[in-house]
Amino acid sequence: MAKLVFIRHGQSQWNLENKFTGWVDVDLSDEGVEQAKNAGRLLKAEGIEFDQAYTSVLTRAIKTLHYALEEAGQLWIPEEKSWRLNERHYGALQGLNKQETADKYGDEQVHIWRRSYDTLPPLLDASDEGSAAQDRRYADLDFRAIPGGENLKVTLERVIPFWQDKIAPKLLDHKNVIIAAHGNSLRALTKYIEDISDEDIMDVEMATGQPVVYDLDDKLNIVSKTKLG
Amino acid sequence: MAKLVFIRHGQSQWNLENKFTGWVDVDLSDEGVEQAKNAGRLLKAEGIEFDQAYTSVLTRAIKTLHYALEEAGQLWIPEEKSWRLNERHYGALQGLNKQETADKYGDEQVHIWRRSYDTLPPLLDASDEGSAAQDRRYADLDFRAIPGGENLKVTLERVIPFWQDKIAPKLLDHKNVIIAAHGNSLRALTKYIEDISDEDIMDVEMATGQPVVYDLDDKLNIVSKTKLG
Repeated sequence: MAKLVFIRHGQSQWNLENKFTGWVDVDLSDEGVEQAKNAGRLLKAEGIEFDQAYTSVLTRAIKTLHYALEEAGQLWIPEEKSWRLNERHYGALQGLNKQETADKYGDEQVHIWRRSYDTLPPLLDASDEGSAAQDRRYADLDFRAIPGGENLKVTLERVIPFWQDKIAPKLLDHKNVIIAAHGNSLRALTKYIEDISDEDIMDVEMATGQPVVYDLDDKLNIVSKTKLG
Repeated sequence: MAKLVFIRHGQSQWNLENKFTGWVDVDLSDEGVEQAKNAGRLLKAEGIEFDQAYTSVLTRAIKTLHYALEEAGQLWIPEEKSWRLNERHYGALQGLNKQETADKYGDEQVHIWRRSYDTLPPLLDASDEGSAAQDRRYADLDFRAIPGGENLKVTLERVIPFWQDKIAPKLLDHKNVIIAAHGNSLRALTKYIEDISDEDIMDVEMATGQPVVYDLDDKLNIVSKTKLG
């Protein structure tokens, strides 16, 4: 038996401004900071003792993890960051206002970009301003692995290797794990561990800053799932 | 060539209250938080691009690292925490006021405890309240490695294996490394890399929150040493 906790990062500045964010490294809003601290208080009240933390290489998830762990009195646990837990890359839509994009391309097109499992957004080229190919944090990555834009299917395909290589072995070793990440990287993990269909997963929403606690058995089957708060 | 940066954690609550701290997990004071952020601004102005961060398992060093890296725009770099970078364990003196201890045991005795290279403080037993043996963060550690109290000599003997196994290989691989730690764990590293005598090292002081930047050559000889700010 092991406990697995997901936390979607608290509200970011661009959540607030209704922009497509993806891999752009936007900070938490003040409310997002409060959500992260509150998540930590909920975890403390639950009395969960973590052995390992995972997060993305994006500041809003990292800070959410740190605020939550500090409130829970467990900032000292080992932490590993990976680009594989990053938000879905939103391609050339990154930085655009969602309403303005709907005005320009139509509500239906934007709905497809946001809610289709396997439709890609317009892609960024490696030479485009804002491409991850120009960001030092991905400098050690094979450039063929750096996306120009992702759907949930592609996101899942790069998240699951990290689950299999890093997270699952810890859980199988009876370690309690906390993952602070993003709406779509956590949606990918949820789809995988709950075996949700391609259609149904797009309707699964996770509230910002609300911890989701799974109890897993020795085969990583779900014994219980609880949303805190 | 690689860059190595030491940051002693910002002022803690117990620095402020003039208490022996050691392995007690005391938080930063408000001034300590400001010192850490200022360290980050100095590092940003210097333009140093870090590849790896190391810190202790004590909150005041971890938070100093996080505040500094966030200000420097590099919160995303990999971080590893180790008890080997902890402050010197102050044994049964931990939690005592320094002045009250001097009043009780005499100035000379306290001076010896604080400034002798190889005199141990009064020791804590594993069963004593506040012993690290009862702290979950050391649960994976051989209990024979958990100190009841340390002098600088013993501190150095447990810090240097971490330098040799983790830090030095990164520097030899031309990675830039930042270490946020404590007065005495950093003093131990300073003694080792600068080859300072047992007598002289006790007079080496490092200001809280002031980054010390070393340029090291391919044999880890010191090419330059600069204190920022």
